[in-house]
Amino acid sequence: MSDSPPARPVTACLLIIGNEILSGRTQDANLAYIATGLNSVGIQLREVRVIPDVADTIVGTLNEMRHRFDYVFTTGGIGPTHDDITAENVARAFNVDLVLDPEAKRRLKALYDSRGIEMNEARLRMAHVPQGATLIDNPVSAAPGFQIGNVFVMAGVPKVAQAMFESIKGRLTGGRTVLSRTITCDLAEGTIAQALGAIQQDFPEIDIGSYPFWTATGFGANLVLRGPDPEQLAMATDAVSAMVTALGGNPTEPPT
Amino acid sequence: MSDSPPARPVTACLLIIGNEILSGRTQDANLAYIATGLNSVGIQLREVRVIPDVADTIVGTLNEMRHRFDYVFTTGGIGPTHDDITAENVARAFNVDLVLDPEAKRRLKALYDSRGIEMNEARLRMAHVPQGATLIDNPVSAAPGFQIGNVFVMAGVPKVAQAMFESIKGRLTGGRTVLSRTITCDLAEGTIAQALGAIQQDFPEIDIGSYPFWTATGFGANLVLRGPDPEQLAMATDAVSAMVTALGGNPTEPPT
Repeated sequence: MSDSPPARPVTACLLIIGNEILSGRTQDANLAYIATGLNSVGIQLREVRVIPDVADTIVGTLNEMRHRFDYVFTTGGIGPTHDDITAENVARAFNVDLVLDPEAKRRLKALYDSRGIEMNEARLRMAHVPQGATLIDNPVSAAPGFQIGNVFVMAGVPKVAQAMFESIKGRLTGGRTVLSRTITCDLAEGTIAQALGAIQQDFPEIDIGSYPFWTATGFGANLVLRGPDPEQLAMATDAVSAMVTALGGNPTEPPT
Repeated sequence: MSDSPPARPVTACLLIIGNEILSGRTQDANLAYIATGLNSVGIQLREVRVIPDVADTIVGTLNEMRHRFDYVFTTGGIGPTHDDITAENVARAFNVDLVLDPEAKRRLKALYDSRGIEMNEARLRMAHVPQGATLIDNPVSAAPGFQIGNVFVMAGVPKVAQAMFESIKGRLTGGRTVLSRTITCDLAEGTIAQALGAIQQDFPEIDIGSYPFWTATGFGANLVLRGPDPEQLAMATDAVSAMVTALGGNPTEPPT
């Protein structure tokens, strides 16, 4: 991150590519991890799309997203099998060839040689990237992801996706980090709604969300305040806390 | 479901509305549930979008999605607080007024009366639906969702969202159910990729996905076959199983 982050928000979109998520067979486990990691470097995740392994859908969605957001991250579809079509369609979206990357081939060959596995045509597919792309390290299983323009292409398997994301975090230029405080209250949302809305109006730069819960022992709401300015955030949080107390509740702040 | 389902696929999109998902604070727990449930009534989930609680984003996305898919399902943003803006923006998308629904008010009042809770302005917001909408039952906390046109608006809290979805499943008209078989093999994806791709070419109506795994005890891939025709599915599954055996692996099918 630079010393003087840009004043405007830096935005990102996540593209989850995979029939297995849309069929309900596999539960996505990357969204929350990437969202939290992006926020830690001052980048706001503004949209997520889950799309199938369909060539034209990948190309169309990617070309829409990469012009609308500062960064696009994709997960899924970069393995050796016939249903792994992300790399070739990212190349199509950028109108460049998919080419063999010698360094990617070297990394794969080193892994396979060490395990006595043959390098065949299918495995060599994973060494192909769009012309002009730079590699994203894969410390788990060698086959790299890649970056082209503002698009970062990562694996879908959570352990690999998360390792890849950690390895690129340093390349990203964020804006101001969005800070967060949470007040848990033991009042129903309907009881606090009006007063909470008034506080939101008093602090337009703070984004206040209310998330109700019902547990075996009771009910209440988590009131989440988010914003880049620590002083504004502290004032708004104090106002929310005082409001809960004034309405007869007990505000608590979970340890961070 | 009708006796003679339409020949073309029936498609759906899920719109997850909520800053708490995009910030990474909350892990979505509705996608896989709704995807699986839709498939059980012959509807294919084709796209999921996660969008923030921003009025114009909700309106624009909804108007795009409801014309592209047979069904749109939304979760999130229908509570009593200021950040619950889904209902009013669904009304805007359909260019109708948001109106008080007497039956929704009656249901809320019955719940509040039984618990000695006052009906205030914030709670009354939850009895408002777009003009022309029909209610979706909420057996958990009374505040209903609603259907307008091909759009089904549900709560975000998983227990409520899932109960609402169960209550509307009977209203949906699906096509042929997509059947699924899974062969787990103990070979690396790179070993089976070429032969698996050949089987995919032999069975164009079957969608074959390969999902690698690494566990403490070994590695392999789940080979998932999906399609509407039981005979084609059985033939393709047999072909995959025989292929794994021929390549020296041990194909197993998990109990369903």
